[in-house]
Amino acid sequence: MGRQKVYLDKLSRTCQIRNLLLRQALAECLGTLILVMFGCGAVAQLVLSGGSHGMFLTVNFSFGFAATLGILVCGQVSGGHLNPAVTFALCLLGREPWRKFPVYFAFQTLGAFLGSAIIFGMYYDALWDHPDNFNVTGNRSTAGIFATYPGKHLTILNGFFDQLIGTAALIVCILAIVDPYNNPIPQGLEAFTVGFVVLVIGLAMGFNSGYAVNPARDLGPRIFTSMAGWGMEVFTARKCWFLVPIFAPFLGAIIGVVVYQMMVGYHFEGEVRDRREAQQQNERERLNSISTNDHNKEKEVS
Amino acid sequence: MGRQKVYLDKLSRTCQIRNLLLRQALAECLGTLILVMFGCGAVAQLVLSGGSHGMFLTVNFSFGFAATLGILVCGQVSGGHLNPAVTFALCLLGREPWRKFPVYFAFQTLGAFLGSAIIFGMYYDALWDHPDNFNVTGNRSTAGIFATYPGKHLTILNGFFDQLIGTAALIVCILAIVDPYNNPIPQGLEAFTVGFVVLVIGLAMGFNSGYAVNPARDLGPRIFTSMAGWGMEVFTARKCWFLVPIFAPFLGAIIGVVVYQMMVGYHFEGEVRDRREAQQQNERERLNSISTNDHNKEKEVS
Amino acid sequence: MGRQKVYLDKLSRTCQIRNLLLRQALAECLGTLILVMFGCGAVAQLVLSGGSHGMFLTVNFSFGFAATLGILVCGQVSGGHLNPAVTFALCLLGREPWRKFPVYFAFQTLGAFLGSAIIFGMYYDALWDHPDNFNVTGNRSTAGIFATYPGKHLTILNGFFDQLIGTAALIVCILAIVDPYNNPIPQGLEAFTVGFVVLVIGLAMGFNSGYAVNPARDLGPRIFTSMAGWGMEVFTARKCWFLVPIFAPFLGAIIGVVVYQMMVGYHFEGEVRDRREAQQQNERERLNSISTNDHNKEKEVS
Amino acid sequence: MGRQKVYLDKLSRTCQIRNLLLRQALAECLGTLILVMFGCGAVAQLVLSGGSHGMFLTVNFSFGFAATLGILVCGQVSGGHLNPAVTFALCLLGREPWRKFPVYFAFQTLGAFLGSAIIFGMYYDALWDHPDNFNVTGNRSTAGIFATYPGKHLTILNGFFDQLIGTAALIVCILAIVDPYNNPIPQGLEAFTVGFVVLVIGLAMGFNSGYAVNPARDLGPRIFTSMAGWGMEVFTARKCWFLVPIFAPFLGAIIGVVVYQMMVGYHFEGEVRDRREAQQQNERERLNSISTNDHNKEKEVS
Repeated sequence: MGRQKVYLDKLSRTCQIRNLLLRQALAECLGTLILVMFGCGAVAQLVLSGGSHGMFLTVNFSFGFAATLGILVCGQVSGGHLNPAVTFALCLLGREPWRKFPVYFAFQTLGAFLGSAIIFGMYYDALWDHPDNFNVTGNRSTAGIFATYPGKHLTILNGFFDQLIGTAALIVCILAIVDPYNNPIPQGLEAFTVGFVVLVIGLAMGFNSGYAVNPARDLGPRIFTSMAGWGMEVFTARKCWFLVPIFAPFLGAIIGVVVYQMMVGYHFEGEVRDRREAQQQNERERLNSISTNDHNKEKEVS
Repeated sequence: MGRQKVYLDKLSRTCQIRNLLLRQALAECLGTLILVMFGCGAVAQLVLSGGSHGMFLTVNFSFGFAATLGILVCGQVSGGHLNPAVTFALCLLGREPWRKFPVYFAFQTLGAFLGSAIIFGMYYDALWDHPDNFNVTGNRSTAGIFATYPGKHLTILNGFFDQLIGTAALIVCILAIVDPYNNPIPQGLEAFTVGFVVLVIGLAMGFNSGYAVNPARDLGPRIFTSMAGWGMEVFTARKCWFLVPIFAPFLGAIIGVVVYQMMVGYHFEGEVRDRREAQQQNERERLNSISTNDHNKEKEVS
Repeated sequence: MGRQKVYLDKLSRTCQIRNLLLRQALAECLGTLILVMFGCGAVAQLVLSGGSHGMFLTVNFSFGFAATLGILVCGQVSGGHLNPAVTFALCLLGREPWRKFPVYFAFQTLGAFLGSAIIFGMYYDALWDHPDNFNVTGNRSTAGIFATYPGKHLTILNGFFDQLIGTAALIVCILAIVDPYNNPIPQGLEAFTVGFVVLVIGLAMGFNSGYAVNPARDLGPRIFTSMAGWGMEVFTARKCWFLVPIFAPFLGAIIGVVVYQMMVGYHFEGEVRDRREAQQQNERERLNSISTNDHNKEKEVS
Repeated sequence: MGRQKVYLDKLSRTCQIRNLLLRQALAECLGTLILVMFGCGAVAQLVLSGGSHGMFLTVNFSFGFAATLGILVCGQVSGGHLNPAVTFALCLLGREPWRKFPVYFAFQTLGAFLGSAIIFGMYYDALWDHPDNFNVTGNRSTAGIFATYPGKHLTILNGFFDQLIGTAALIVCILAIVDPYNNPIPQGLEAFTVGFVVLVIGLAMGFNSGYAVNPARDLGPRIFTSMAGWGMEVFTARKCWFLVPIFAPFLGAIIGVVVYQMMVGYHFEGEVRDRREAQQQNERERLNSISTNDHNKEKEVS
């Protein structure tokens, strides 16, 4: 085992990347890959098996726990956002620097692209075996395995509102979970709790258009499908629907930040600040009184 | 980032509310909003998709984990009751002051109202697309998305008993989870455990009338539906059923408190009190013996 | 609130039971009541709704999490066995005194009786509305809501083996979870883990006869049904099947104890004992050498 | 109880095995037995009940939580691999010695063999009652209860890729969970998290061939079925498919190790090493400067 150890150590030193932002970007890429691989994999299993090996509930479970696992894999390195809207919200609040935002967005989209490519390879035979393979629209279309498309009943306006509310709900819950002043759950369970948030969003807000609530999760797989055989129709379908899950989530993130901060966050933060300032005030007064005492004493002495 | 920090800090100071009860009421409002938004959202998804994107189990999961998330969002501020019956039970036990009760009730109902309004907006297109939109009764009525209505087999008396038992079961479990003497679970997992309680109530007690077990969760959305197009029938339907999920839960809360305290709670509390009193007794005896000793010593000395 | 506190304190002192065994028996009674109320409630919901509000999976979930909640309610007082087979296994291992066994058995059965009575009351209207109400056998019989009956394909011998293996699996997992030497999970999560064990037993071993694996959970509700309208057929049906879920679990408990102890438990325990004995040996040798040294020194001195 | 204690103590001493590797092998055997008993039990329940007591989701849940329970039972003794591919990955990384690999492989396969034998006995009547008992191929074949067989649409190549990707995903997640430098979850929750990984793999990657991703879990039950009445067809069916779930997982384990280490692991490890080396460097410099100072002092003195 001695030679193995030496070899492993050498390999470890060769492969080590020291640039922090690149490491974080790679980690986000792997995390989002896991999210999309398991999430879209569950949709593929549902669609391609014709319902025998899945149902909408299994997709909800899979996306939820895939988010948990994605965060577990990369969370200690990059924070485990897996979602440009989350990165955006944290930048808004000044908890992450703005320069991270485009890098994370790019690598999250890349991870989502790779994740959907893996699922494409894994279910390649099943896809060719499916009657409506490579159809973008229609009842049993397969494009919906990778990117989201709106239901027949949905107008663009309602779809925009759907994505906006979904993302706002996601952000409110995530902000509560990671609030440094609030701190409601034991350390280390954040990933599980975020998984439950994603699960519940799928259970309650998945009927309209399949709850992307994540620009990278939708854009990456969509680019992949445009290249893998479904063609440019994935962008043009349903009046360029693909723009909605890219832009609505950012607006939703703003609303989520405002709602959480106005209704819970700022009051907490303020309370901590009030207490700290009161303490500093006390400290200052104590010092003042000491120096006055000293002065008095000096007087007395003199 | 310097200017952003300054601006955020100013915003934080401007928006801070210092009145504790108002902050708690706002937090309860947001928590109940989340409970109803995700819970009724799942019912909407089930009803409007005609079963393709949901089933009764998904509604149970959604209400359960929505309770978890609602508690996580507001728990550190307001205790995370989300339910006037829970507030009532804690007031009964003297753990919350009675003056909180009406304020919490009002804001929980407001939160439930807002939560159902969000779901109404989110599924507006789907609702218009549904064949029986804005029907209160009937097989595929949509009023049941928001408030609860009794099944056809149910009499008012059995319905009252149903809500009473459901709430009593909820209260027994919640009292065990938050019992300061019992303490069965690691701190920070209360919200998850309460979520499991709500899930199990839905799995076992949801067939009769949809397990409201919460006056605010039922009344808020019902008021909303009466205003949003379903009309006053939501109140008059089924012999004024709406009164049952308002009053039965409070009676259930009393029964739950009595059952838990009689069978587990008081004996625990008493044990702790016995031990404390025994300790005080010991202390007193020790002091007595010391003073006697002193007296004796004094005697000896003299 | 001052008068409320005084009154509550007086009530608390009046109701306190100081006999430990009685308190534990009451707690077991409440815990098993919760297990059966939620568990059989889910079966009732499945059977009476004709599948619209439940499926076999919801019954599995409900029994699993009901076990969790039952243990949480009574665990700190009585250990949270909820099952005479578990009490029996712990007595076998010398971790509980044998005199607890009959008391726990009686109160667990009483709790199961009361739990099924509550469900009977709750679904009274639905039961009368059901076409095959108060039938013990037949495709849609309602007796199976409360007690377990074997599937048509099952012989008594295979049914006995089924209950025996189910209980043995339960006991192996529970012993691993509460092993004082093994200790695999954080304190306070035992109840959740036991819930998962019950869930998995239902998912994998529920087809033959409905996985009682618990004499009290089966006998209590069976006695109730014999009194509530189903008659003595609940005992005589299927060649006195009711004896199987009473006796097989105890044999299964013995097998579970032997398997766990032989394959994992004793080696752990032995390792701890070896280490302790080695330490004592060292201590003794050190003392010997000291006394020898002293002797030598004395010699030298002399 | 005195005599019971004495007897138990004597028994404990008699049965204790002191050889560490044998104890670990026995524990792995019991853990894999539990995994396969509950996992294949759920498949049996699904197949033999014709869908009334199970669906693909219940199989996914059962395998996931069975993995959790198997790890809990044996984890403290043997690490809870339950899977030769996991043992292989840990050997590759130098965290387990290579000589453990064949022993673990053998006992994991033995455990899987025994687990499927228990399920065979438990569902013996139901198996004989099933129309297609002891068929290896065909729509309702029962051989798939125990070992995995590819779907009709699947080529051997795609099947190999399927097993490879499934195992790689498993290994990436497990490495993140147990990474000594990363450490994303509270100690004691590893088993639960691995259970979620297995669950998600089943939800997203189970359609092609039933997600063995574990040579022992597939080979052990397959050997059992060849002996229990299905004959040698279990090996020859579908162009010797049985070789795929034996060899693909090891290749997948290599890929999983490389992906995790390249994208997350090595950079973490490197950071810790950098910090340690920087510290040692500092220490050395400090010692140097001290010795120099001493030298200078000596000089001065002289």
